[in-house]
Amino acid sequence: MATLETLERRLQELEDREGIRECLARYTFNADLGHYEEWARNFTPDGVMDTATEHLVGYEQLLGHLQDPSGSQKAIEHRSTHNTVNLFIRVAGDTAWAEGYQLILVKDVDGDERRVYRMGLNHWDFEKIDGRWFIQKRIRREVGQKAGDEDVIKDYLNT
Amino acid sequence: MATLETLERRLQELEDREGIRECLARYTFNADLGHYEEWARNFTPDGVMDTATEHLVGYEQLLGHLQDPSGSQKAIEHRSTHNTVNLFIRVAGDTAWAEGYQLILVKDVDGDERRVYRMGLNHWDFEKIDGRWFIQKRIRREVGQKAGDEDVIKDYLNT
Amino acid sequence: MATLETLERRLQELEDREGIRECLARYTFNADLGHYEEWARNFTPDGVMDTATEHLVGYEQLLGHLQDPSGSQKAIEHRSTHNTVNLFIRVAGDTAWAEGYQLILVKDVDGDERRVYRMGLNHWDFEKIDGRWFIQKRIRREVGQKAGDEDVIKDYLNT
Repeated sequence: MATLETLERRLQELEDREGIRECLARYTFNADLGHYEEWARNFTPDGVMDTATEHLVGYEQLLGHLQDPSGSQKAIEHRSTHNTVNLFIRVAGDTAWAEGYQLILVKDVDGDERRVYRMGLNHWDFEKIDGRWFIQKRIRREVGQKAGDEDVIKDYLNT
Repeated sequence: MATLETLERRLQELEDREGIRECLARYTFNADLGHYEEWARNFTPDGVMDTATEHLVGYEQLLGHLQDPSGSQKAIEHRSTHNTVNLFIRVAGDTAWAEGYQLILVKDVDGDERRVYRMGLNHWDFEKIDGRWFIQKRIRREVGQKAGDEDVIKDYLNT
Repeated sequence: MATLETLERRLQELEDREGIRECLARYTFNADLGHYEEWARNFTPDGVMDTATEHLVGYEQLLGHLQDPSGSQKAIEHRSTHNTVNLFIRVAGDTAWAEGYQLILVKDVDGDERRVYRMGLNHWDFEKIDGRWFIQKRIRREVGQKAGDEDVIKDYLNT
């Protein structure tokens, strides 16, 4: 039978899922609009980004990734949309994980064409600090890369 | 400590976010499927759409925008999908705002090709009337347009 | 005035919507990653998929659809992302329906190009069994097919 305590616990879980969706919305806006510091601070201080070609740890490395003039993000800055879809989320207190896709669309430098640029498979770990959710670890692999899609999205199978 | 009143307030906030997602789903279906009047009535009576090239106010102007035989929507009607993603929502009583992307994909008139047609950055203001959420104002700018992405999505930075 | 019973009913509705979003996330992961049995078991035992060209009923037919070496899914397996967006959901006890889009993006077999492959209009019926949501029926039509978009997404108009 429902009590204030059981209802609050269930409500908190739904609020946490909203907080995680917001964290990932922040990620996309900050990446596309060139808010480097906000993007890096959306990870925990020990945050990790593992993209097969890069393994970044902590604020300075994450910030450097976005600011690198020859980096992957600078190449599409202000012409891109990162789009997070199909989120599958599990919360356990102040930690959580999610799996889902993040698609990047890009407008050409010249002309009016837009195209599908990347299709990423993702597993994220999150931590809640002072009521706000942050990315603790992001593992990303590109669809169709050799062995790219084997290991990243799998925890949902066990729930 | 939780009370019925505090739990109901938190629950109402989550229900309002669902209502806002529904309002934007209605927008996409009505636009793509040619439901002109339903599309225009999904705004408040004083509803505004600001797209850089157009500034529409109120039901008649909004309706005219969709019905215009030489307009931007008629050009892609029944070949398009509008797709709203990365929603960041804030509710305050019977008003709310959201920021996020709306991507348009279009199938060619002839042939079997589909392409990315538009990538819009959006700030929406909403009002709740008789329990249902409506768009009071939509500001939209295209990704990659000169100055297009500077000002539209920014309120999320302050939350 | 709010009671534990009314709050729990409203909370349950939100949890059910989350469960339906999860069911559709499972659909996309299983389809793209080649989890045939999990994909077929994500329907109820009498589950139906109606795609205009195919009318599949029950686990064996659904499983066969994905495993068919000359089928539509095998053709894009491990190169695709299915993406469910703009969900409009209504729950009634242990049944529910949703309407929305499912877009498929595909990476070319050779080369590094990615493209918009399909844009599907969908009406889903769901059933909750032992606390988990399953697809009981999926009706899908392709945008821009003759008569494709007339009848599938319409129930949202009446809510």
